[in-house]
Amino acid sequence: MAQQGTSSGHPIAVLNKDIIPRLPGQSPILFAAKKEKNLSFETIAKALGREEVAVAALFYGQAKASPEDITNLAKVLEIEESILKETEMGGWPDRGRQMEMPPKEPLVYRLFEIIQNYGYAYKAVMNEKFGDGIMSAITFSTTVKKETDEKGDWCVITLRGKWLPFSRF
Amino acid sequence: MAQQGTSSGHPIAVLNKDIIPRLPGQSPILFAAKKEKNLSFETIAKALGREEVAVAALFYGQAKASPEDITNLAKVLEIEESILKETEMGGWPDRGRQMEMPPKEPLVYRLFEIIQNYGYAYKAVMNEKFGDGIMSAITFSTTVKKETDEKGDWCVITLRGKWLPFSRF
Amino acid sequence: MAQQGTSSGHPIAVLNKDIIPRLPGQSPILFAAKKEKNLSFETIAKALGREEVAVAALFYGQAKASPEDITNLAKVLEIEESILKETEMGGWPDRGRQMEMPPKEPLVYRLFEIIQNYGYAYKAVMNEKFGDGIMSAITFSTTVKKETDEKGDWCVITLRGKWLPFSRF
Amino acid sequence: MAQQGTSSGHPIAVLNKDIIPRLPGQSPILFAAKKEKNLSFETIAKALGREEVAVAALFYGQAKASPEDITNLAKVLEIEESILKETEMGGWPDRGRQMEMPPKEPLVYRLFEIIQNYGYAYKAVMNEKFGDGIMSAITFSTTVKKETDEKGDWCVITLRGKWLPFSRF
Amino acid sequence: MAQQGTSSGHPIAVLNKDIIPRLPGQSPILFAAKKEKNLSFETIAKALGREEVAVAALFYGQAKASPEDITNLAKVLEIEESILKETEMGGWPDRGRQMEMPPKEPLVYRLFEIIQNYGYAYKAVMNEKFGDGIMSAITFSTTVKKETDEKGDWCVITLRGKWLPFSRF
Amino acid sequence: MAQQGTSSGHPIAVLNKDIIPRLPGQSPILFAAKKEKNLSFETIAKALGREEVAVAALFYGQAKASPEDITNLAKVLEIEESILKETEMGGWPDRGRQMEMPPKEPLVYRLFEIIQNYGYAYKAVMNEKFGDGIMSAITFSTTVKKETDEKGDWCVITLRGKWLPFSRF
Amino acid sequence: MAQQGTSSGHPIAVLNKDIIPRLPGQSPILFAAKKEKNLSFETIAKALGREEVAVAALFYGQAKASPEDITNLAKVLEIEESILKETEMGGWPDRGRQMEMPPKEPLVYRLFEIIQNYGYAYKAVMNEKFGDGIMSAITFSTTVKKETDEKGDWCVITLRGKWLPFSRF
Amino acid sequence: MAQQGTSSGHPIAVLNKDIIPRLPGQSPILFAAKKEKNLSFETIAKALGREEVAVAALFYGQAKASPEDITNLAKVLEIEESILKETEMGGWPDRGRQMEMPPKEPLVYRLFEIIQNYGYAYKAVMNEKFGDGIMSAITFSTTVKKETDEKGDWCVITLRGKWLPFSRF
Amino acid sequence: MAQQGTSSGHPIAVLNKDIIPRLPGQSPILFAAKKEKNLSFETIAKALGREEVAVAALFYGQAKASPEDITNLAKVLEIEESILKETEMGGWPDRGRQMEMPPKEPLVYRLFEIIQNYGYAYKAVMNEKFGDGIMSAITFSTTVKKETDEKGDWCVITLRGKWLPFSRF
Amino acid sequence: MAQQGTSSGHPIAVLNKDIIPRLPGQSPILFAAKKEKNLSFETIAKALGREEVAVAALFYGQAKASPEDITNLAKVLEIEESILKETEMGGWPDRGRQMEMPPKEPLVYRLFEIIQNYGYAYKAVMNEKFGDGIMSAITFSTTVKKETDEKGDWCVITLRGKWLPFSRF
Repeated sequence: MAQQGTSSGHPIAVLNKDIIPRLPGQSPILFAAKKEKNLSFETIAKALGREEVAVAALFYGQAKASPEDITNLAKVLEIEESILKETEMGGWPDRGRQMEMPPKEPLVYRLFEIIQNYGYAYKAVMNEKFGDGIMSAITFSTTVKKETDEKGDWCVITLRGKWLPFSRF
Repeated sequence: MAQQGTSSGHPIAVLNKDIIPRLPGQSPILFAAKKEKNLSFETIAKALGREEVAVAALFYGQAKASPEDITNLAKVLEIEESILKETEMGGWPDRGRQMEMPPKEPLVYRLFEIIQNYGYAYKAVMNEKFGDGIMSAITFSTTVKKETDEKGDWCVITLRGKWLPFSRF
Repeated sequence: MAQQGTSSGHPIAVLNKDIIPRLPGQSPILFAAKKEKNLSFETIAKALGREEVAVAALFYGQAKASPEDITNLAKVLEIEESILKETEMGGWPDRGRQMEMPPKEPLVYRLFEIIQNYGYAYKAVMNEKFGDGIMSAITFSTTVKKETDEKGDWCVITLRGKWLPFSRF
Repeated sequence: MAQQGTSSGHPIAVLNKDIIPRLPGQSPILFAAKKEKNLSFETIAKALGREEVAVAALFYGQAKASPEDITNLAKVLEIEESILKETEMGGWPDRGRQMEMPPKEPLVYRLFEIIQNYGYAYKAVMNEKFGDGIMSAITFSTTVKKETDEKGDWCVITLRGKWLPFSRF
Repeated sequence: MAQQGTSSGHPIAVLNKDIIPRLPGQSPILFAAKKEKNLSFETIAKALGREEVAVAALFYGQAKASPEDITNLAKVLEIEESILKETEMGGWPDRGRQMEMPPKEPLVYRLFEIIQNYGYAYKAVMNEKFGDGIMSAITFSTTVKKETDEKGDWCVITLRGKWLPFSRF
Repeated sequence: MAQQGTSSGHPIAVLNKDIIPRLPGQSPILFAAKKEKNLSFETIAKALGREEVAVAALFYGQAKASPEDITNLAKVLEIEESILKETEMGGWPDRGRQMEMPPKEPLVYRLFEIIQNYGYAYKAVMNEKFGDGIMSAITFSTTVKKETDEKGDWCVITLRGKWLPFSRF
Repeated sequence: MAQQGTSSGHPIAVLNKDIIPRLPGQSPILFAAKKEKNLSFETIAKALGREEVAVAALFYGQAKASPEDITNLAKVLEIEESILKETEMGGWPDRGRQMEMPPKEPLVYRLFEIIQNYGYAYKAVMNEKFGDGIMSAITFSTTVKKETDEKGDWCVITLRGKWLPFSRF
Repeated sequence: MAQQGTSSGHPIAVLNKDIIPRLPGQSPILFAAKKEKNLSFETIAKALGREEVAVAALFYGQAKASPEDITNLAKVLEIEESILKETEMGGWPDRGRQMEMPPKEPLVYRLFEIIQNYGYAYKAVMNEKFGDGIMSAITFSTTVKKETDEKGDWCVITLRGKWLPFSRF
Repeated sequence: MAQQGTSSGHPIAVLNKDIIPRLPGQSPILFAAKKEKNLSFETIAKALGREEVAVAALFYGQAKASPEDITNLAKVLEIEESILKETEMGGWPDRGRQMEMPPKEPLVYRLFEIIQNYGYAYKAVMNEKFGDGIMSAITFSTTVKKETDEKGDWCVITLRGKWLPFSRF
Repeated sequence: MAQQGTSSGHPIAVLNKDIIPRLPGQSPILFAAKKEKNLSFETIAKALGREEVAVAALFYGQAKASPEDITNLAKVLEIEESILKETEMGGWPDRGRQMEMPPKEPLVYRLFEIIQNYGYAYKAVMNEKFGDGIMSAITFSTTVKKETDEKGDWCVITLRGKWLPFSRF
């Protein structure tokens, strides 16, 4: 049976009821099992062989589950696989709708604010380094790491995307 | 004299005239000199001992210049230091106003979209790792790096902020 | 009995539960049968003699079903025709309400962004070619095709609309 | 000297003064020369070896001009090349800002409406054909063609973009 | 018994389920009976001695029903009059809330666009003809007529309102 | 020389200075001459052989002027034709941008309110009369007439547009 | 037993079902009893010794009911006092949320429009009469009166608020 | 010569420079003369035989000046009448544009808040008193009065408008 | 058993039903018990050893409850602790979503208005006192106190946050 | 002569050029003199006998200057008093317009976020302490203080307003 709780000692993340109307059908099922079994995203991510953020995105319906993901989720969460298959997990995510922008949540707002303040600075530096194009948010991965020093904890988010130059036509 | 152009071979970033009304007084002066001398943010960043994104943010009035920054900028851009001091560079940045949100610029939109899609996923993972709090966008630094493999170029953005737990009161 | 699954090998499209409140009554019925029978829009489009996009629009309540469409849908989806007739399929579509704009869905945003970036360019070119008027979105058809070359897959969307000159009055 | 006017017999497109504050510095210069010489985008596109929409986008500051584009533009428009180089044409486009969304212009609104009405239909069909991903608006090209039959003129817009599957991470 | 269907041969208008939360209590009752009996607004309008648009507005809760209207509606729709009286039909309409603006529905958008494009032109012409004031939308009536010529069908909407001069005070 | 003032005895419409930044270059020129010569839109419309609303729309840059219109405008307004030709009158209108929506102007708001209140009623009646489609705002004309009875003046606006059925594809 | 109906002969005001989700728990109970007993706000206001507008505000949850108000409401509406006490009437109003702004309701829009048009005029006149401050909307009362003359009915709304000068600090 | 200053002893109202771009051409001229001569709206209103609010509205371009108003304004403000006639005073007000809604100005916000809080209460009471209709904001007048008692100053605003019943059609 | 009612003599705060859809699952449970037992936030705050505002924030799901808080809440509210643990109280708050901005509630609007009016003044004073940075809203506490003098009651809100200087990078 | 610089050693606050169009005429004059003389708000506040925030608000045109304030400002800033009197300082502030909401400035956003997160908590606590009413933002004062302990600097903002109970009417 999977490791209970988080490795950090903090409680696991569960689902706030008031956001359910904005989530697909699998979200409350997955979160209920996660809460029931007291599993962290770290634990579930290991069981799926994926990154934590990707797995949390699966739970919020913001990423696609492969058939293996569904099998693995069913196993680690001890849900009947058929129940998961009856939800929209077998379909295509309708991404982005659960978050209202600008975000009101302080944690998410800080990320939004970074884009708001440094947007043009990122663009200028990226154009000088890569030319005319964008960093893909599709051919893309992201991680969250924790670093600790004498000043306390630091959160390090890495965004890594393919550079796509604008086509000349 | 400073190195001309970018190390990537791409042209340097200059200022689009239509955004000037949303920028403080030093921005057009700094960008004009940058264009005139054909200097990249990489070159200027080295002269200031700062990160490229921070320097680009200085140019857009989104970060504060220290007195040494002003001296160094005057030197590398070959502007009279007194001219820079007469601008609002000696004051406090009024951050965030130059960017309209949601951003229309495709490059910046992709960054915004990452927050929009993965906002709750980041929050869930960060809460499990760090507890109840936020990653600071103030006690914060960021870098942009280029990686190249057989599939092409990859852009890697790192966001590093102090973790601030919510006070209990 | 109709061909199961898609010809591409990808899973079929099903309905995300959280969008149902914004769709007319027939949408969940049609999508449930589609899921149950594992039918692609390509297969259903053939059964109706219509284009795939038009059929998907029928499922989302964005296009009108003719009596023959209803008969054919009932047959291919193995739903009682009377059930479909009891829904609003016999009425007039209330178009456009299911999509919030700007779209948050990355796939749809890319289409929106094309209009945002090239809107005036399209207008200038179309005015020079056709004069003062618009391309109708009513006397209109559209298709989606797949092309594959050594660089991968390409998606080709065609928009074809009647040119309507502004009346002189 | 280049061909005057359009091949359709319609007047050429010129710039409306009230949109200038939302355009970069090269736009009024380019449009003034285009008007002065009475050149269509078709003619200019031939001189540049590019598509008409791409050239119109250059004029509105929505696409990047290569050094050859600048040389060719200077030649066909009979502008001093150094004048064009002094504008932001040598920099990176700040795309999307000139168009307010939803668009008020009837021609552009019709394109917007197509996305608004058929957005989910496109997504469903594209997911079934290509899997989980997006059609790139960056590795992308577009054309506008005119077809004429007994019912009148038809406008055919083609959007062709690379399919980008979401990365699994 | 009343005439079934429309005189045009087109199906009758019924209610889309997803708009019900924005309508008062009588709307679903009225539309259900209309659908059940297959009655057009033209037929119901004759039974009430009112204009079609006014009757459709009654069904959407945008106009007040007089006691005679309720009696006549009950008769033509074969609903118990007491059922209609138990709804809010006896109260005062809370107008305008069912329509989100700008409208997404293409048919309604075209009407909106006419105001958007010609708003100042109407104002200038009306000021020259009538002086400083407004055309009342309260002391007001409207009709929709069909005209057919060799080019096809034409829709003619007439808006007729009392001219109200601004009071001098 | 043209008839001075309006036939109604009300002053002619002139241009409010604060709206100029939202209008194309010809608008202030046309309105200045109109004011100087004290001409009503009725008078100018007769000189152009067009409807008053169309002519007012020309003045606000919301309709296209034909070469004959420009010649006639130059004549009736006693402006050098070459001056008008140097403006964007020879180009394509960028319609709809001068009006902010919802309109704040009371007269225009009343028209907007009619659409807001009766939008669905118009749609239901038009669908029953014409089928699935829209009334074109492009193949379209409009007039404003004055009727007077013992209760006072009535304003009658007629909107006449081609009915466009949705294409089946 | 209380006087039935209104003194004007017009029907009493009842509650539109679609606004209930935006109202507190007591609103549907109060309005149901009002409808059942056919009581006007005038009658209820007399029973409570309060102004009509204040009582209507109580029904919409926009004003606080004192214990005596609850007792009197229970009596005049013939509701068990304990039922009213179980609602949020004993709590504090969460004002302003039931009205979306700008209001779509024509009657309320006209009031909004008065503020929109005359806002600065009111401010200028009030500053000259009272100095730097505001008219309180809290230490405030309001009435609606009817006046009738040969031209018809006139509605007279009085707003009376304490003048609050800005503190000097 | 007219009475200087206000009768209240408070300074007169003058024009804030930053609102000028949203006002018609006569506003800065009128306000400059008002400041120069130190005249209150009370004094000017007496000279014009109009209400103070109406006169302040004239200054902000929100009401129409009659020829006598212009003559009287020229006299009391000691401006050349021809100068006033050259402004848009002779035209038709483009009302409502100078005020952004919701208002940010605390004084005006309080008025807005009254509508926001009591909007439905006013409607219910007015419907019971007058039937189905609106209070006109056009056939309308308004005054501001000062009352003083032992608690301090009270501001009393009266809104008086013609009742317009909805037409039955 | 805990002290009933408030020390001020005013009724306790309870929950308005219409805001429940925007609150997490524990909110209605907590408020129902608070109402049932007639407990003030002052009383509950004492039982938890926390500030009143923090406890009210707990009830609205805007602050995190520690395990001790849950135990104490269960005790003072006489709820089974297991019931509270089954809600999202054990999870992480999704802050800020219950409040729509700008706030319509008059009490909350006044706080918002203070920021709107004095925002730049606070910034200027804080920059001069502390340098370039922000006052943290996370490492933060707040209190509400009552002061009474001969003029009446005064409300004193204290905001105390850690000063965070912008990192230099 | 007044004390130069701030007592904290941080540079003084100056005006960012891009916000000038949203400020009244006196703002650039006051800030220019403040910069020229290198005076802090603390110094100027002492010269005026007012609070720092109030003085900063004067500079941003968000508070009224009394005649003594103008005299004192002229003295401490060494500006001709007549120059200040020619600006709108003698008029009434048009408050709130310089700040766009939600604020993009990180410092101001944190204050906004406090209201967004704790708005209902403040309301509940204040209602229990004071009854039904608001804390005035007009009969109001505010201060900013600095506290320092071993953890660093703390910013303490105090908001003190008169409690205004809702009138019963």
